[in-house]
Amino acid sequence: MTNVDTSISDHATGAAAREAAAHSAEHTLKLYAGWFCPFVQRAWMVLCEKHISYQYVEINPYHKAPEFLALNPRGLVPTLAVPVEHGTQRELKPLYESLVICEYLDEAYNDTDANGPSLLPGDAYLRARCRLWIDHVGSRIVPAFYRFLQHTPEKDYSIEEARNKLHEQLKMFVREMDPAGPWFLGPTFSMVDVSLAPWAVRLWLIDYYKPDGLGTPAEGQGGEDEEVWQRWRQWLAAVQERDSVKSTLSDREAYIEVYRRYAEDKTNSLVGQATRKGETLP
Amino acid sequence: MTNVDTSISDHATGAAAREAAAHSAEHTLKLYAGWFCPFVQRAWMVLCEKHISYQYVEINPYHKAPEFLALNPRGLVPTLAVPVEHGTQRELKPLYESLVICEYLDEAYNDTDANGPSLLPGDAYLRARCRLWIDHVGSRIVPAFYRFLQHTPEKDYSIEEARNKLHEQLKMFVREMDPAGPWFLGPTFSMVDVSLAPWAVRLWLIDYYKPDGLGTPAEGQGGEDEEVWQRWRQWLAAVQERDSVKSTLSDREAYIEVYRRYAEDKTNSLVGQATRKGETLP
Repeated sequence: MTNVDTSISDHATGAAAREAAAHSAEHTLKLYAGWFCPFVQRAWMVLCEKHISYQYVEINPYHKAPEFLALNPRGLVPTLAVPVEHGTQRELKPLYESLVICEYLDEAYNDTDANGPSLLPGDAYLRARCRLWIDHVGSRIVPAFYRFLQHTPEKDYSIEEARNKLHEQLKMFVREMDPAGPWFLGPTFSMVDVSLAPWAVRLWLIDYYKPDGLGTPAEGQGGEDEEVWQRWRQWLAAVQERDSVKSTLSDREAYIEVYRRYAEDKTNSLVGQATRKGETLP
Repeated sequence: MTNVDTSISDHATGAAAREAAAHSAEHTLKLYAGWFCPFVQRAWMVLCEKHISYQYVEINPYHKAPEFLALNPRGLVPTLAVPVEHGTQRELKPLYESLVICEYLDEAYNDTDANGPSLLPGDAYLRARCRLWIDHVGSRIVPAFYRFLQHTPEKDYSIEEARNKLHEQLKMFVREMDPAGPWFLGPTFSMVDVSLAPWAVRLWLIDYYKPDGLGTPAEGQGGEDEEVWQRWRQWLAAVQERDSVKSTLSDREAYIEVYRRYAEDKTNSLVGQATRKGETLP
């Protein structure tokens, strides 16, 4: 069973290649990754944000390492191998699902001197509110992203419909942001920003591949929504400059190559297939 | 826009009616609920489990109270109204999404003397593992439940296919349970049990409405999976006897009436509509 496409580059390039190389030494905490995958990038960003020591393990999608498959028989990335102590024994246990991994890392690496502040607020209500909007990203924005990117003239929905849907979900999210910014919660970077950042920095692929592109209004062109789009531009600019984002991104040419199959709706990835069938993303 | 069916009983019956009546007095913490809704039952169970003082507010789906719509314009239940302090001011803020509400209640009401232990383990890895299997319930078991319940002869999938899919997802979940039981984590009741319990205690509706019913094997009839089904029966029996489950259930006749529209695939609920179209559950 193939979960990802098999003709793509098997390694990171650019800044992500340097980050991977800097974390290639054997370590008990291992991130099994695919350099191009936005779900992986969420987990990778949290490892960077919290200054956690880890080993980056690139999974070659058509030659998956046996020790990886032993840990996660589904063979999906991101998978995190976590050292769990049983008395004097230490066992490597798997975690998967990007948001579960992110929240685990945030909770397990909680030495504020070494790891900085938590990526979720201390107040229970604010934390719940963050979870609501992280849920919005996963259940609304991410599916709308793929539905737009994988649009072809044969679809039973128009490209305008796909664009409007993505805009609508983005604007709903932006309206919940702290008005001063730059981050969702204001001055404090949080898991809400992590949850959307990987797709935000891939939106240019829609401009590259789709007629008329993403079509978000330029400065001053947002009409009655200008204030919302202004806040969006501010957030996106901050994301693009964030170290944990920049250091986990490969060269643009590499993404163009990978995402061609999405844009032509020929990808074999599980996310791509589910989008094609109109099903829940895996 | 109608989110739920409008001809169903507008109040709880049986044990749930007594629980609602016992929590009808004005309180700043309010659960806006629909007595028949399994997502509501998750939140309601956590209120019971943690001995939290709250007000139960039944939302009449065709006469939604203005103060409820002001709080949650989408008008979906469960919605929790949370008193949030701003200096000397207190404001009621909304939370929705059943699992977000459950985790909020567990975190905000954390006085172990008054509220008992947390419903998630203290260890970060175990907590993450719980979140993985709560995710399995929401993304795999619950959609399979509705796909089976809403099966009609006109569907492009067979009833056997729907049954096998639900069995497969249930067995995957059971294999992850502590072998001794009775709960997912063993002797300790947790949020994992909460996440599935409301659908577990509605499975009999599939027996009621569908040809050959749910078809889980009886004692000793499980073949090579007998051990898995044995563990399932043990867990289900424990769930059916749990006070927080029993006290949030209405009379069986009332469910038969409500779920007829699901079984005939004529429900207007958002979950029912999404299942009909093969889309992500809202």
